Amino acid sequence: MSLIVTGTLGIDSIETPTGSAQRVPGGSAAYFSAAASAQGPVRLVGAVGEDWPEEHRSVLSSFREIDLAGLEQRGGSQTFAWGGRYHDNMNVRDTLFTELGVLEEAPPSVPESFRDSRYVFLANSHPGVQNSFLDQLPDRALTVLDSMDLWIEIANADLHALIARVDGVMLNDSEVQQLTGIGNPYSAGRRILEMGPAFVIVKKGEHGAILVHEDGVATMPAFPVALEGVVDPTGAGDSFAGGFMAYLNRVDRCDLEALKSALAWGTVTASRTIEAFGLEGLRGLDMPALEERLDVFRSATHFE
Amino acid sequence: MSLIVTGTLGIDSIETPTGSAQRVPGGSAAYFSAAASAQGPVRLVGAVGEDWPEEHRSVLSSFREIDLAGLEQRGGSQTFAWGGRYHDNMNVRDTLFTELGVLEEAPPSVPESFRDSRYVFLANSHPGVQNSFLDQLPDRALTVLDSMDLWIEIANADLHALIARVDGVMLNDSEVQQLTGIGNPYSAGRRILEMGPAFVIVKKGEHGAILVHEDGVATMPAFPVALEGVVDPTGAGDSFAGGFMAYLNRVDRCDLEALKSALAWGTVTASRTIEAFGLEGLRGLDMPALEERLDVFRSATHFE
Repeated sequence: MSLIVTGTLGIDSIETPTGSAQRVPGGSAAYFSAAASAQGPVRLVGAVGEDWPEEHRSVLSSFREIDLAGLEQRGGSQTFAWGGRYHDNMNVRDTLFTELGVLEEAPPSVPESFRDSRYVFLANSHPGVQNSFLDQLPDRALTVLDSMDLWIEIANADLHALIARVDGVMLNDSEVQQLTGIGNPYSAGRRILEMGPAFVIVKKGEHGAILVHEDGVATMPAFPVALEGVVDPTGAGDSFAGGFMAYLNRVDRCDLEALKSALAWGTVTASRTIEAFGLEGLRGLDMPALEERLDVFRSATHFE
Repeated sequence: MSLIVTGTLGIDSIETPTGSAQRVPGGSAAYFSAAASAQGPVRLVGAVGEDWPEEHRSVLSSFREIDLAGLEQRGGSQTFAWGGRYHDNMNVRDTLFTELGVLEEAPPSVPESFRDSRYVFLANSHPGVQNSFLDQLPDRALTVLDSMDLWIEIANADLHALIARVDGVMLNDSEVQQLTGIGNPYSAGRRILEMGPAFVIVKKGEHGAILVHEDGVATMPAFPVALEGVVDPTGAGDSFAGGFMAYLNRVDRCDLEALKSALAWGTVTASRTIEAFGLEGLRGLDMPALEERLDVFRSATHFE
């Protein structure tokens, strides 16, 4: 078993109604791998520039199960940087700035030592770049991709070609609607299955997530969190993906029952992320802590 | 055990993107009692005018477990009538007309034979009217109330006084936010508990429902329904309440575990209502059909 993620590493600046964090470690691959590492080893492939703060490497290294052999630091390049501000209800945010930096250059390559990876998560990136990663991972057993509105709009054909190659698609509800033109997530999910994948996960933020699989469907609410429990929602979706994929890699299964359990592991993992700024909420997360939270989630959702 | 509902009986005219129904039986007490009757007897208290169609009585009578002894038909009065049109996504509707009719007159009274009722649902009505029903039900074991934006706005003090008298409050997410000024449903629910009740149910439509109880919380998604499964959402909330209360009445418990199961019974009951116009989706619903749908719901929501 071996789990790999390809995605962004960024320098995030975040403002919420109650606080802020400046130039903290962020990016889809950072959140994914920090989240996944609570369940076991995870391999990270991503690029940063020469401005990447040394403290950010220390933060990622403190998550001991993250293998950083695929992290490329490039002289003369700038790290991806993002700034965002959340509205009062924390469900809406404005992007204050985006500096693409290395994301405009050639993508990093998969190190030789990572080429036998079996569980593959393609975090949000240009679908052409995501496609090129697949060619470097011949032993993959399960591939899941994330994407975003931008690529649905400007790289639609590339995205459709990629969707036909992967096993699973993970998008939020508005992206699924944009991709299919269908508002109902079950109907939209079935339309995406016709493009090739075995399953689709529709992320609904505070309203949970839905799984549409060729063998059936599942639906799960978000973890119960009161107002004071939501400090910074940044990275919740990538953390959900990290907990989800780490579970599948750990049990080495991807049938419907395993995917349902993986949804629950993703849900409780993401609930830790939003409790603090940046990656801080995931610090110290381990199997006992996840299992404890899973018991709370089971108790809140299961009925006699 | 004895379940009673007080609320409206109406003549509904409904337009959806794919069809319409003219002058069909509707109103909160009609949906509640038709939904509850699948699990056992339910007593209905409501008033109609002399224009009330005889076919509507036949429809209600076809749900054999509804006791119509509390149905008052008034000469010289008009029945409450409502017209609505749903938007394409079925989550938004416009009210086309509202003719209050008997709702502007004195409320019906609880028949002597209903006064020993133990499980009481006060469907949406003026809180002063709801309060007057409580005085006529001295043996009540559990009282749950529904309300709406109008009463939160124009009868706020009456509503607060009533909330202090009941065991449970059932509102949708926007009403809970309006009542408390708090957007997070768990935090808003806790604020309402401070007003007196033992629990609050926050209905979120297609996103399910949340229970905030003095002993803990529960969260449940909606039943999985594809686009073609949603014909007419009218009455879904009242049907949810009917299935919920009928379960509690049937098991004669109102602890946290029972309330969680009741949420599930309410959820699967409501999923039948939206499959057809008016009360038609509830026709023929019985315990085996509910248990079958509950198995599907359990399979879609429970994880290992």
